[in-house]
Amino acid sequence: MKLSLNTATVKKQWNLAQMIEGCARHEIRGISPWRDQVAQMGLKEAVKSINSHGLSVTGLCRGGFFTARNWRDDNRRAIEEAHALGAQCLVLVVGGLAEGSKDLISSRERVREGIATILPEARKAGVPLAIEPLHPMQAAERACINTLEQALDLCELLQDGIGVAVDVYHVWWDPKLEQQIKRAGKKRILAYHICDWLVPTRDLLNDRGMMGDGVIDLPRIRSWVEGAGYSGFHEVEIFSELDWWQRDPDEVLRICKDRYVRFT
Amino acid sequence: MKLSLNTATVKKQWNLAQMIEGCARHEIRGISPWRDQVAQMGLKEAVKSINSHGLSVTGLCRGGFFTARNWRDDNRRAIEEAHALGAQCLVLVVGGLAEGSKDLISSRERVREGIATILPEARKAGVPLAIEPLHPMQAAERACINTLEQALDLCELLQDGIGVAVDVYHVWWDPKLEQQIKRAGKKRILAYHICDWLVPTRDLLNDRGMMGDGVIDLPRIRSWVEGAGYSGFHEVEIFSELDWWQRDPDEVLRICKDRYVRFT
Repeated sequence: MKLSLNTATVKKQWNLAQMIEGCARHEIRGISPWRDQVAQMGLKEAVKSINSHGLSVTGLCRGGFFTARNWRDDNRRAIEEAHALGAQCLVLVVGGLAEGSKDLISSRERVREGIATILPEARKAGVPLAIEPLHPMQAAERACINTLEQALDLCELLQDGIGVAVDVYHVWWDPKLEQQIKRAGKKRILAYHICDWLVPTRDLLNDRGMMGDGVIDLPRIRSWVEGAGYSGFHEVEIFSELDWWQRDPDEVLRICKDRYVRFT
Repeated sequence: MKLSLNTATVKKQWNLAQMIEGCARHEIRGISPWRDQVAQMGLKEAVKSINSHGLSVTGLCRGGFFTARNWRDDNRRAIEEAHALGAQCLVLVVGGLAEGSKDLISSRERVREGIATILPEARKAGVPLAIEPLHPMQAAERACINTLEQALDLCELLQDGIGVAVDVYHVWWDPKLEQQIKRAGKKRILAYHICDWLVPTRDLLNDRGMMGDGVIDLPRIRSWVEGAGYSGFHEVEIFSELDWWQRDPDEVLRICKDRYVRFT
């Protein structure tokens, strides 16, 4: 059972302490918390509780947003927190267009420079950086790295200490997905995120589906990722205003486990 | 003034006869009608009216949907209609996943086979086929060809009589856009569609923006397209349930012209 809970999945129902206890109760052995939740609980307390419950931290969400102000301090803190939590990676949601800008090319330049700036510090802290290419529909607002190929080009440029988070929701449509997962290999795949693409999708951000409820061929993508050498956790991350955030969180975790076994 | 009106832009307000008259009244010299509108008016009547108003038919929307039933007859009729209308191309929205399927790879195979099947007939009729890569957010429901690179790979395989419709809405995010527009060149770029990407976008299909209201760098993309040798019309195509479909269509056309001059 390599299931990990990205805590966004139950963020409307539980605080981090409850999420940690929930994972332990449901025998989910991995957790990937968001920084606001860690801050609310207190970093030390979070570290202590995660360790005492024996959970692996499969990632910390998130660094990035290099096109926003204050990105440098914010990413420095994110690296420190990821180090303290023993996170397997710091997930980078790199940021979209700078405010008021339509210049995607220069936004991408800024992202490249931003990552290059924080990378030495991340290496020193032993925190791998995981670029998460986001779905092209989020290019303007959240991330201007939108394909695995684009992310891997950047990884090759930056060399060590950096890889990718492969989230099926963002990449399932990509005609080059198999090829680029193979290219990424064991070295670059730092995290694997699962959920499903609903038909119809009612919102660009918060209408993700539970595994099995949508159209993503999860076993196929899993076979590519594992075939490339990835043997880490599979992290379920579901943003769902209208459905899963409205449910009893224990029910959500039960269903995550069941669907993970049956549909991924 | 190379503006053309894709009639979807005022489809809730006008029938095709009114659209044709509207274009003439506003001195918009190109039109790209949808087949349901042509059918409603009657093909002969549509041809007659478009010709008598001196409009260029910059495309017929649409053929494709090769993953649906009855694709063969439907595409045959579409080619005949495009021929009768003297359309510069038949736009192909190729279809998404077959019903009940999660197999994107085999859907893409079916699309390739479908296009290969109808291509000889299109060549014979002198109707170029324009594959329109759709935004990845429409991969499941409308088109499993989602990047210009993917479309051009297919064009190269199929050789003559086929190219692409470059719609900024679908491709603006693509890190390989400039490179692939250059690759496409004059030979493959059969149509150029404009509108804008709104922030936020409230609906995956029907919330497109008027040029200038969103974040697409339209002059830059235009420079790439023209730099590649394209010298045809610029076709404005706006699906907009909440805004432009609610407005007086003469106002819509006036604003299209103004924004075309100022923002593209």
